[in-house]
Amino acid sequence: MFNLSGQNFIAGQRSSAGEKAVFSYDASTGERLPYQFAQATAEEVNQAAQAAYVAFAVFKQTSPAERAHLLESIANEIDALDDQFISIVCQETALPEARIRGERGRTTGQLRLFAQVLRRGDYLGARIDQALPERQPLARPDLRQYKTGIGPVAVFGASNFPLAFSTAGGDTASALAAGCPVIVKAHSGHMATAEYIATAISTAIKKCALPDGIFSMIYGQGVGEALVKHPLIKAVGFTGSLKGGQALCDLAAARPEPIPVFAEMSSINPMILLPEALKVRGDKIAAELSASVVLGCGQFCTNPGLILGIKSPEFSQFLIQFTQHMAQQPSQTMLNKGTLQSYQQGLDALLAHAKIQHLAGQAQQGNQAHPQLFKADVSLLLEQDELLQEEVFGPTTIVIEVESAQQLSLALAGLRGQLTASLIAEAQDLNDFSVLIPLLEEKAGRLLLNGYPTGVEVCDAMVHGGPYPATSDARGTSVGTLAIERYLRPVCYQNYPDHLLPPALQNANPLGILRLVNGAMTAAAL
Amino acid sequence: MFNLSGQNFIAGQRSSAGEKAVFSYDASTGERLPYQFAQATAEEVNQAAQAAYVAFAVFKQTSPAERAHLLESIANEIDALDDQFISIVCQETALPEARIRGERGRTTGQLRLFAQVLRRGDYLGARIDQALPERQPLARPDLRQYKTGIGPVAVFGASNFPLAFSTAGGDTASALAAGCPVIVKAHSGHMATAEYIATAISTAIKKCALPDGIFSMIYGQGVGEALVKHPLIKAVGFTGSLKGGQALCDLAAARPEPIPVFAEMSSINPMILLPEALKVRGDKIAAELSASVVLGCGQFCTNPGLILGIKSPEFSQFLIQFTQHMAQQPSQTMLNKGTLQSYQQGLDALLAHAKIQHLAGQAQQGNQAHPQLFKADVSLLLEQDELLQEEVFGPTTIVIEVESAQQLSLALAGLRGQLTASLIAEAQDLNDFSVLIPLLEEKAGRLLLNGYPTGVEVCDAMVHGGPYPATSDARGTSVGTLAIERYLRPVCYQNYPDHLLPPALQNANPLGILRLVNGAMTAAAL
Repeated sequence: MFNLSGQNFIAGQRSSAGEKAVFSYDASTGERLPYQFAQATAEEVNQAAQAAYVAFAVFKQTSPAERAHLLESIANEIDALDDQFISIVCQETALPEARIRGERGRTTGQLRLFAQVLRRGDYLGARIDQALPERQPLARPDLRQYKTGIGPVAVFGASNFPLAFSTAGGDTASALAAGCPVIVKAHSGHMATAEYIATAISTAIKKCALPDGIFSMIYGQGVGEALVKHPLIKAVGFTGSLKGGQALCDLAAARPEPIPVFAEMSSINPMILLPEALKVRGDKIAAELSASVVLGCGQFCTNPGLILGIKSPEFSQFLIQFTQHMAQQPSQTMLNKGTLQSYQQGLDALLAHAKIQHLAGQAQQGNQAHPQLFKADVSLLLEQDELLQEEVFGPTTIVIEVESAQQLSLALAGLRGQLTASLIAEAQDLNDFSVLIPLLEEKAGRLLLNGYPTGVEVCDAMVHGGPYPATSDARGTSVGTLAIERYLRPVCYQNYPDHLLPPALQNANPLGILRLVNGAMTAAAL
Repeated sequence: MFNLSGQNFIAGQRSSAGEKAVFSYDASTGERLPYQFAQATAEEVNQAAQAAYVAFAVFKQTSPAERAHLLESIANEIDALDDQFISIVCQETALPEARIRGERGRTTGQLRLFAQVLRRGDYLGARIDQALPERQPLARPDLRQYKTGIGPVAVFGASNFPLAFSTAGGDTASALAAGCPVIVKAHSGHMATAEYIATAISTAIKKCALPDGIFSMIYGQGVGEALVKHPLIKAVGFTGSLKGGQALCDLAAARPEPIPVFAEMSSINPMILLPEALKVRGDKIAAELSASVVLGCGQFCTNPGLILGIKSPEFSQFLIQFTQHMAQQPSQTMLNKGTLQSYQQGLDALLAHAKIQHLAGQAQQGNQAHPQLFKADVSLLLEQDELLQEEVFGPTTIVIEVESAQQLSLALAGLRGQLTASLIAEAQDLNDFSVLIPLLEEKAGRLLLNGYPTGVEVCDAMVHGGPYPATSDARGTSVGTLAIERYLRPVCYQNYPDHLLPPALQNANPLGILRLVNGAMTAAAL
């Protein structure tokens, strides 16, 4: 059996300099598991940051192919983890085995996709403007730009995807791809899982003979603050609550040297059910939508938390069916006690609101989450009531009936930024409601048609981001290959000799990448 | 003669609803000019923001070609401004006529370059992952990503480039190119100049029959705060002081919806003079460097404010020559009284410091700036003394003599983020000191070899940005075509029918742009 030492991972060494221990719990029973983890000391955080800084100088100069090999090696190590690993993840998160096996595939697939990005090389953004020595009135120097890593990155994983959005998740994969060392704050909800994954990463780094300092992982409560404040950390990746993300943003902005924080935080993922679609297939929509709301116990960032429809016999009929489907959904175990408590609090606030009506769901009791359905008055959206804008993390959703197409536009205009916005529509609807599309584009990072937002494909075109408070920076994504751009910055070389230029910018184009040369894209050598 | 009404530009209308007036001054004499400008009221700011928001819905859907035409029209209007315009710019800034004529060419060239970027279309970042309906275990939907404008942008121009970094400067050009409406806070140092340029922009917008709301300009003291706080403003572009930029960053971060601020602030632009270069051409370097330090009265963001060399007979010899050159440089008129006062205060702080020695320059007096040369003890850099890190805006620089190559690396490690870092070196030097290059890359946005940083080419490969405090976000540039990326965000369409997709993502590729389709770049239709 794998030996869980519970020590911090500090640049290739295991370390437990402090005295405080933190513990992992069985998500289903709430009982403490027989593993304990050493809370990192300030000195261990500093050691990790120093090692990351030193390693960065070497790591950023590795070739894209070398880093691709590292990512693939990490993927191989994670794929090789045994059933014991799967069983511990399930124990720590109460997520079913099939889901965890699937999520492992997603995680290693993501690492391998970034390896492809590295080999393709467009992330380098190579641009060359050759010298124009004869230009009047002034000669133009030789100018060459590429993108390079921003520096050591602090990564805070999420509870709801213990693999794909955690220790070796999208933030870590994209930061390592960018040539940035990573220091992970292990999520308190799955520390044993994190230890398995961190071991896999460390093993891969050793096999690739890369500097140990490119990866560290620390355990403990409150240790993230020291990490974000450390002067050698240059960016932060985070997935979690609005409160948690905003706290990191505030810490980062208050540093003597402020740094960017890419926080994916809160989204209620509005779905708009248009009339013709309800007419044609209202019953099917009711069934599919209820399945999407309770998928993974509603613990998805893209869980549909707000359903909008226009008052009509079809919408009323849909609502009856949807209420029946939601009433039939079984209870499920949440990720941990804290999540269940938050869910309960969120429900209590909805139940207590005069303008919100409870439509379906058994009274919340015991240690599982019962799916719930609410209906809110449209005035809450028009008047931008805070309560309606806040994500209730769990298997629940709120339906709103608007009076008219015009009121629908007004209601949408009142929404905050979102990860996704979905239309359920027939061709006729798209014709009648095309005015909604630019409105939705303004509000969300991904627009879906006749689909449910709970599936997030890992690919080049994905955007898992959006205007605040969906994320802290609408210009990034935390899923998909564009995620690498968050950890890159452009640098320009002026009049440097060929042999001292980064390979991406050398005349011979040794990486064989597409480059913008004197205003035109080409893969040719100069 | 052009009629300067001094009214605010609010979405195509001139407006002066308030009672407070602000005034323009002759930079050379300090006398008030016969123009007065209406300080914008909170309601005028609100009108401009509302109009920008409404116009955004239309403007973001204009074709790249339409926006290219707008930028070229603005350039034509600015090129058509008469000698009266040139003379007012000179009067407000004390900059010489040839410089202003050159800067106009740079400004209109910049607008035309962004028109080329729009026609090329790579800024759209189009990515298409086609559906894989047969994929197991789950089908892949059709996913298509492009970049679209972030929303209305507030622009704060700089005093030192009244055309190229002001009303129609790089921030405005790149924001309009991105499809974002712009609201300019007119710089208090050249409000008559701003009025000419805003009129040119407004005329071009009318000629192009685009919505008036895509451009507004407000006058006044303190009105920028209301602008940055307005909920409909989605990003800020700024060039100016560290204090001013940081204040805007703080305002933006404290909004209910925080927004990105791209502030270009403070840089001392270190230059490293390596031994062999000093041996071969120390006298030439001394002459060239002094010319660069006093160029435009030292009022360049990229003014070389820190000169580093290794103790040697050659460096001592250089220092003698450089001191002589600096002592011979004539005094010049600065942009305005405030700038001269700041320069005086900066010099006083240097003169008062025990470890800083004054080498050349007449005592500061009268209404002009006298070039000054200082020498500081290396310990100030090693101990990261604040004083040495701060830009003194004006015709002065500080020389530091280090003991050894090793101390040079340590001294560079102590530097904050910079816009530029320059090496003056022979081939032998580059061989001996190649270890410096990655260190400089970490510190600066642009690395120059055997050049002076004061020239900033407007082209695809330029980076005019860098780690904090050079800018508030090292991932951007405020000069060059990459500047457009600051005002774009990615959006993904999932399973949308072809006719409802943005043209950049339609199957036929009507824009004829390069796209990343299923992992490979192609301009082909699907």
